[in-house]
Amino acid sequence: MPQEQRLLTPGPLTTTKRVKEAMLRDWGSRNPDFIALNRAVLDRLVALISGGTDFVAVPMQGSGTFAVEAMLGTLVPGDGKLLVMVNGAYGARMVEMARRMGRAVVAIEDPEDRPSDTDRLARMLADDPRISHVAAVYCETTSGILNPVDEIAAITARHGRALLLDAMSAFGALPLDARRTPFAAVAASANKCLEGVPGVGFVLVRPDALARAEGNCHSLALDLAAQRRAMSGNGQWRFTPPTHVLAAFHEALAEHAAEGGIEGRGRRYRENCRILVDGMRRLGFEPLLPSELQAPIIVTFRMPRDPAFDFTRFYDRLAAKGFVIYPGKLTVAPSFRIGCIGALDGNDMREALAAIEATLGELGVASGRP
Amino acid sequence: MPQEQRLLTPGPLTTTKRVKEAMLRDWGSRNPDFIALNRAVLDRLVALISGGTDFVAVPMQGSGTFAVEAMLGTLVPGDGKLLVMVNGAYGARMVEMARRMGRAVVAIEDPEDRPSDTDRLARMLADDPRISHVAAVYCETTSGILNPVDEIAAITARHGRALLLDAMSAFGALPLDARRTPFAAVAASANKCLEGVPGVGFVLVRPDALARAEGNCHSLALDLAAQRRAMSGNGQWRFTPPTHVLAAFHEALAEHAAEGGIEGRGRRYRENCRILVDGMRRLGFEPLLPSELQAPIIVTFRMPRDPAFDFTRFYDRLAAKGFVIYPGKLTVAPSFRIGCIGALDGNDMREALAAIEATLGELGVASGRP
Repeated sequence: MPQEQRLLTPGPLTTTKRVKEAMLRDWGSRNPDFIALNRAVLDRLVALISGGTDFVAVPMQGSGTFAVEAMLGTLVPGDGKLLVMVNGAYGARMVEMARRMGRAVVAIEDPEDRPSDTDRLARMLADDPRISHVAAVYCETTSGILNPVDEIAAITARHGRALLLDAMSAFGALPLDARRTPFAAVAASANKCLEGVPGVGFVLVRPDALARAEGNCHSLALDLAAQRRAMSGNGQWRFTPPTHVLAAFHEALAEHAAEGGIEGRGRRYRENCRILVDGMRRLGFEPLLPSELQAPIIVTFRMPRDPAFDFTRFYDRLAAKGFVIYPGKLTVAPSFRIGCIGALDGNDMREALAAIEATLGELGVASGRP
Repeated sequence: MPQEQRLLTPGPLTTTKRVKEAMLRDWGSRNPDFIALNRAVLDRLVALISGGTDFVAVPMQGSGTFAVEAMLGTLVPGDGKLLVMVNGAYGARMVEMARRMGRAVVAIEDPEDRPSDTDRLARMLADDPRISHVAAVYCETTSGILNPVDEIAAITARHGRALLLDAMSAFGALPLDARRTPFAAVAASANKCLEGVPGVGFVLVRPDALARAEGNCHSLALDLAAQRRAMSGNGQWRFTPPTHVLAAFHEALAEHAAEGGIEGRGRRYRENCRILVDGMRRLGFEPLLPSELQAPIIVTFRMPRDPAFDFTRFYDRLAAKGFVIYPGKLTVAPSFRIGCIGALDGNDMREALAAIEATLGELGVASGRP
């Protein structure tokens, strides 16, 4: 087996040994101990947004995209209209989903290095009474940008529409409090800031919104209303759940709590991000985003100008040194990305920087300057 | 941690220690070693049906239901019409899926203890030229019944229609050879007879059928054509894959090959089933199905008549002894089920029988006779 690598990516990411070891048991999905484990996971997720009895957690297997599609397909009715705030691939993906499922959809499109335009949101909601739902991405993993979620939520609420949040790469590390920020639902995944293994996501949703959503969903497998209805009956998933992935998620949530919850997790990631950005700047690299727009999740760096810098060789040599980074996904500029999340700390970031510096030397790159 | 239980269920089922230990590593999903692992899994699946270059394997995360919905949604076009052979919950579920996704659908419904009616299939295909696809379940886990797949396939081919098979609980233990049995696609899961962990399924499909299916799918996440297109480009999944589940699947397929593939696996399950049915008969229990209709996957027993037999107490006491069985799902008669699959052998079945006998004694049940 090749040596374990540290994953400086937005997922799959590095998890702890204990999280992985939680998968060393086979669980019967109808057994009381698994039902209790599942319930503990869901209760904890509601608590993380201070959801009280205003929210329920509905799990959805698959990647985060499955949870987001389940949220849109279940909550936006056939005669609804969705407005999506787009400044990256994940916003664009929600537009594509809505089109696939035959929902009316419009978008507010901004460049990947700019936060979503909230003035335009207010105008569009005022102008188009048909818009029933607004969808936005908390942290766009495409660039690593923070979107103004609180402002989007306030405007959407003021216009009496329902907000559907994709908080995939923010949930568990960036604040989101249902008592302060009005939203109808938020989708996220086990395998981002909560540091579980990939294979399960979830949607936190107001039960009344879910009750009104019966029969909406374009898909049987992705129907959150049916999933919730079954689970509130006997505590079981509708279809065979990924039991091992759930057991790992349960352990990951215990570790998240032990670290101090969202605050503790966010603090470590901010420190990871600070060390990374400072170190990369020292090597000449330039982050795409100004620090006030940069979420401490994943950092986009502009591609160096030095012709000796070949990204594939850079990536492969870093991987051989045990560090996996991420290609860019930007359309505005050539770039690559380095993640700050997962079971990694400041020492890991410093070791990654040392590996990057060594690799630049091997490639004969004088500076990371774009 | 509670003691590990043996799962006599159709999934989640008991897996080997080695399969679970394959999950003790974090993989980067874009890394060459993971891409190679994923490709090895897919190649092996094609080989299991002797698919040669006529078939490709497209993975789909989630439970088996996700793979089946992906198969139907991708392959049946919007103007197609689906005929589903129904003699249990899984056939009925395909009808529900088709309705959800707005496809024209008709069903041939038979009781749960009778194989699907192939004469009626021939008549309906002759009478209704609009029917473009036939869907059938190889082994209906509802009862454990074997359906006449070869006959269904021959009739469907003779009428020039495409067959979509749900081979969920049969694949890997019961024969299915693409050179002998004509079908357009077959869906199955890692967590049945292939003895992986739950969280991923797959569809084996003819590439030309997939190429014609571009744009059909009602769902972005479940679109097999898009998944295949992306994967044939760079070897990567479209969305974050369940890497640990895939690593376990890779190990499970190696164990499957080491056991002698479909033949060896089927032999062990047939022996498990024989020991189980013989032993249960000795205790007075009566299987629902005659042996020629019984697949060696899961056995349905009629509920005992003895008023001292309370299924919940029976289930709980067996679980306390380390054996998890399965409730019934029949509409035709009260019943419960015991699975023969998973990493279990004849000794496990004999120990389960001893536990069942002891439990009957504790409950004061004189006989399992219905």
